[in-house]
Amino acid sequence: MENAQQRPLIFVGNDDGYQASGLNFLIKIAREYGEVFVAAPTMHQSGKSSALTVDTPLRATMYKEENGLTAYHVNGTPTDCIKLAVSNLMPRRPDIVLSGINHGYNSGNSAIYSGTMGVVFEGSFLGVPSIGFSYGDYTSNPDFSACGPVVRRMVELAIAGRLPGGVCYNVNIPRCDNVAGLKTVAAAPGRWTEEYDCRIDPHGRKYYWLTGKYVPSVPDDEGQDLYWLQRGYATVVPCRADQTAHDAVSAVEQVLNGGLLP
Amino acid sequence: MENAQQRPLIFVGNDDGYQASGLNFLIKIAREYGEVFVAAPTMHQSGKSSALTVDTPLRATMYKEENGLTAYHVNGTPTDCIKLAVSNLMPRRPDIVLSGINHGYNSGNSAIYSGTMGVVFEGSFLGVPSIGFSYGDYTSNPDFSACGPVVRRMVELAIAGRLPGGVCYNVNIPRCDNVAGLKTVAAAPGRWTEEYDCRIDPHGRKYYWLTGKYVPSVPDDEGQDLYWLQRGYATVVPCRADQTAHDAVSAVEQVLNGGLLP
Repeated sequence: MENAQQRPLIFVGNDDGYQASGLNFLIKIAREYGEVFVAAPTMHQSGKSSALTVDTPLRATMYKEENGLTAYHVNGTPTDCIKLAVSNLMPRRPDIVLSGINHGYNSGNSAIYSGTMGVVFEGSFLGVPSIGFSYGDYTSNPDFSACGPVVRRMVELAIAGRLPGGVCYNVNIPRCDNVAGLKTVAAAPGRWTEEYDCRIDPHGRKYYWLTGKYVPSVPDDEGQDLYWLQRGYATVVPCRADQTAHDAVSAVEQVLNGGLLP
Repeated sequence: MENAQQRPLIFVGNDDGYQASGLNFLIKIAREYGEVFVAAPTMHQSGKSSALTVDTPLRATMYKEENGLTAYHVNGTPTDCIKLAVSNLMPRRPDIVLSGINHGYNSGNSAIYSGTMGVVFEGSFLGVPSIGFSYGDYTSNPDFSACGPVVRRMVELAIAGRLPGGVCYNVNIPRCDNVAGLKTVAAAPGRWTEEYDCRIDPHGRKYYWLTGKYVPSVPDDEGQDLYWLQRGYATVVPCRADQTAHDAVSAVEQVLNGGLLP
């Protein structure tokens, strides 16, 4: 390709692993816009948040190299993958970071557990536009067609430098044939309930499976993602990796009253 | 104990595992203030962020039960431990959640990788005062004495209901004999550099160890934790699990321009 040097370098990661169909759908779209570099987990890594692998070494295996696409899988978490790629595998820092498409929502507070968003937060530390995509279908081989226009819209804005900086993006897309539109909102606060299914093994010992359902604190709030996802809209939540509650610093300071210790 | 019913129920977790001396130091102080329930990882779980165990079942093993103390270890992540404890092991919801004391800092952006803070964010979803403690000594058996006054101050404020709600707390304590005081600040933004040590195994294949050093974006900022930790102060960063950049929603909305899709 003659102008390969000028095309943006797009990093693509995920948490469902390098064989996931959501990743392959995202790679296909990304290739329309630039050179693509993939580093995805060797194994399924759902719910891994921003976890790092500390105690064991990482291995990177190239599994595809063709015109405009280089793809590795790494035996670690989603965050390991992007860190290792940026530090040691990529020819240069990416211009854009994409993650997903996740098989299932990362909406509401659940975003904190999301490996998809782990990749995105890592991208935000690089200071480049970083976007995670999640689709409301939890099966292994859904039809991702409805995600196409949403992904293209966000990637085009990123490439054009039009997405506000200093934040990254958590995009959820409802399971449907055609997305009704995009809504920019906050993550719905809430909490998981009935979280564990307790069973008894053949030896009479208890074991627990993670399960549960998410209950939003304020149902039917138009400013929150769950409201619009239920109504056929995709949601865009601008996010920050920094969890400092800046607005609370002075109230806490007052309570600590000079910070003197006995 | 006559008034055992009236004493607060304090959950204590960590990420270094149930045998860590930092956990035992924190348990000892917590017992001065209430009934203590411990659920800590069976194995070392540093850098596990808010990761969940999805694909394998959890086991909980009681390892101590004595007057005012019940302690379990769980074969999962720090977040698994508190979730399972609150859902299935504890007699009631805790009044306070404590995590740590971590062997090593969780300062700056690194808090996002912290299993110690994973526990704290989970506590914040319960709506109870939740505090993580980390000490700037990375060895396995440091002298935690300097942490005592800091932990007591924060726990006393939590029990008195004086810590501002809607946020949780990330407390870092510098390695020293006597802490100079407490400073309420923001987490220092920055990023990790030189992140992987690449080696060659006996079979000639590359492998990578996580390593690196943290470089703050703005060095010497008095509003940030790293500044004060370097000067002998403990730092208190109020945090929120919700990573929505609320202040960016309207700017993004404008760029998306009605959110119509082709």
